[in-house]
Amino acid sequence: MLDHITQTTLLLDEEKCRQNIAMMADKAARNHIRLRPHFKTHQSVQVGEWFREQGATGITVSSLKMARYFAANGWTDILVAIPVNIREMELVNELAAKVQLHLVAVNIETVQALAEALQRPVNIWLKIDTGYHRTGILPHSHEELDAIVALVEQNDMLQFTGVLAHDGHTYKQTDAEAIRTIHHTTVFLLNLVRDRYKGRFPELKVSIGDTPSCSILQTITGVDEIRPGNYVFYDLTQQHIGSCNFNQIAVCMACPIIAKHPERNEIIVHGGSVHFSKDSLMGANGSLIFGRVVELSENGWSEPLEGIEVVSLSQEHGTIRASKALFDRYKIGDLMGVLPVHSCLTADVMGSYTTLDGKRLEHLSGMGQL
Amino acid sequence: MLDHITQTTLLLDEEKCRQNIAMMADKAARNHIRLRPHFKTHQSVQVGEWFREQGATGITVSSLKMARYFAANGWTDILVAIPVNIREMELVNELAAKVQLHLVAVNIETVQALAEALQRPVNIWLKIDTGYHRTGILPHSHEELDAIVALVEQNDMLQFTGVLAHDGHTYKQTDAEAIRTIHHTTVFLLNLVRDRYKGRFPELKVSIGDTPSCSILQTITGVDEIRPGNYVFYDLTQQHIGSCNFNQIAVCMACPIIAKHPERNEIIVHGGSVHFSKDSLMGANGSLIFGRVVELSENGWSEPLEGIEVVSLSQEHGTIRASKALFDRYKIGDLMGVLPVHSCLTADVMGSYTTLDGKRLEHLSGMGQL
Repeated sequence: MLDHITQTTLLLDEEKCRQNIAMMADKAARNHIRLRPHFKTHQSVQVGEWFREQGATGITVSSLKMARYFAANGWTDILVAIPVNIREMELVNELAAKVQLHLVAVNIETVQALAEALQRPVNIWLKIDTGYHRTGILPHSHEELDAIVALVEQNDMLQFTGVLAHDGHTYKQTDAEAIRTIHHTTVFLLNLVRDRYKGRFPELKVSIGDTPSCSILQTITGVDEIRPGNYVFYDLTQQHIGSCNFNQIAVCMACPIIAKHPERNEIIVHGGSVHFSKDSLMGANGSLIFGRVVELSENGWSEPLEGIEVVSLSQEHGTIRASKALFDRYKIGDLMGVLPVHSCLTADVMGSYTTLDGKRLEHLSGMGQL
Repeated sequence: MLDHITQTTLLLDEEKCRQNIAMMADKAARNHIRLRPHFKTHQSVQVGEWFREQGATGITVSSLKMARYFAANGWTDILVAIPVNIREMELVNELAAKVQLHLVAVNIETVQALAEALQRPVNIWLKIDTGYHRTGILPHSHEELDAIVALVEQNDMLQFTGVLAHDGHTYKQTDAEAIRTIHHTTVFLLNLVRDRYKGRFPELKVSIGDTPSCSILQTITGVDEIRPGNYVFYDLTQQHIGSCNFNQIAVCMACPIIAKHPERNEIIVHGGSVHFSKDSLMGANGSLIFGRVVELSENGWSEPLEGIEVVSLSQEHGTIRASKALFDRYKIGDLMGVLPVHSCLTADVMGSYTTLDGKRLEHLSGMGQL
């Protein structure tokens, strides 16, 4: 299969990917909570089917466009986990006519706009800022919360369904205890908000979403639903956090070697920021790493090799610095395997996947726009 | 026009873009050198036509795939300015049968592979490392140079055409004098290499390529050809370097506002790393900037506003921090204009452009792959 790869290609190990999907489905089942997997990492109808085989019915996406893509492919219960873009009201109504649509609000203006323009009922979730401070309503902003809930309550098209949070700050941690503390804080705060309204809305749900918490915790209580997404592939960032082992990473770039520089043991691959995107990790010596090198074989890839790393990316070139021994092992025209720092962004720029048995799987971003 | 924009959109000001194209064409003509514009920034057949109207005949691209795209659209003289990927020999032969194909080599192994597999003649350029140290042959590596030139000379399919460099290190400068010194050093070194072989190859050309040098220098001597690309749009990085003014930046993102946080004067737009990619600039106070905010109107956009900036990007969210006065000026559902830090990467992830009169222009990355 590798012999047929001529260009920079994103490889997908279906077995590892299916194991990741099964692992989280099992954990949710064991904890008696619902898993509503986030599909923003893979954005692929075919990968979505592997979730369906493991029992997924509801999904999470991060844009209305992504909701439309999965709605067109048989998903009927979709949460759009970003404050709803009220300029896309036409698409909101189109989706609400077709699927059980869950929308997120953090400002009363958004809810007012929905109340005015909705033609079909939707489920409304309030996003609570439990510490990440990207977006959300602060849990003690009772006046704001009460006003939004009152508005939702008055309108037949708006069904107050739950409170949710995204603990993006767990992505900055490398200590499992810190991640547990963030998680427990979030669960506590979301339950405070739910308790404030559960008299009037007894069915109100609590939903959380980050891959680090959902990976590290074995016992998850106090929530009705989890929405992790990145675990479908994992990546070097998640390994660095402690969410996964290297051998759970289910995607790997195959990059043709196009130049070698023996005077500094640097190898140039065709693989730059248009292939990897541009997230990086801090390496042991304080320098940035844009990917780790693995050995490719017909059956997949090894754990990362020591003494060889992607040290910089320009638009189309990737620079790999190696020990002399590893430098000598590669020749021009070889394919080099590179584990990505951030699989969501790498998949988004690559626009498709190639499985180890040579199947091409689609990604929404590679489906064409015109 | 703005009223019809519902999603995150990359706006293109055709007038500014055509002025940038004309400016560089005029400069090349004035200096009696050839302009072979790099098309990796726009990657658009329609924008390419604007270059053709200004006299461009030969172009530069950064992958064989991009060469195929432009070859399919009437370009017949194409330089692929990256060490050639010898795994794509089939595509090399296909292109060589169709267009005047110029390839770049930095290692003898690449030239050997070409010599063995080429079915049609191609033009060979040697890439010289004049100081950027990404890739290229060092100008004093005479043994290596001589061996490659001897191999090229022996083979009828390989026509030794010139020596070229890319001064990527000018992108790290903000001092015009430093950029001039880098440029003059490169021209000196390339001419040394050319002079070594001009007895045997009297037609040998010298080609340089970076947008900072080509923008800042008014008089360019000692080269036959320039290959700048980013100047077609420019961006905040080029403004920071000193290559352009804010009002020459020809692309701007229009991002719907999806949330507001009055307690910290932060605005959330739908516009994250899948829209902007993830390059940043160092701001005045040492913090990172991922974009600058402008006022949008039907005729284009203003210079950047002071006191409001994109301070972080996650996958789909952009966080804008504003002064109180500017924070209050925006409401949920408004479109916010944001100048990109790096227009090449932003265009690549967006996959298309919308002109101010509402035309949709394509980008290779948005053309679909399956």
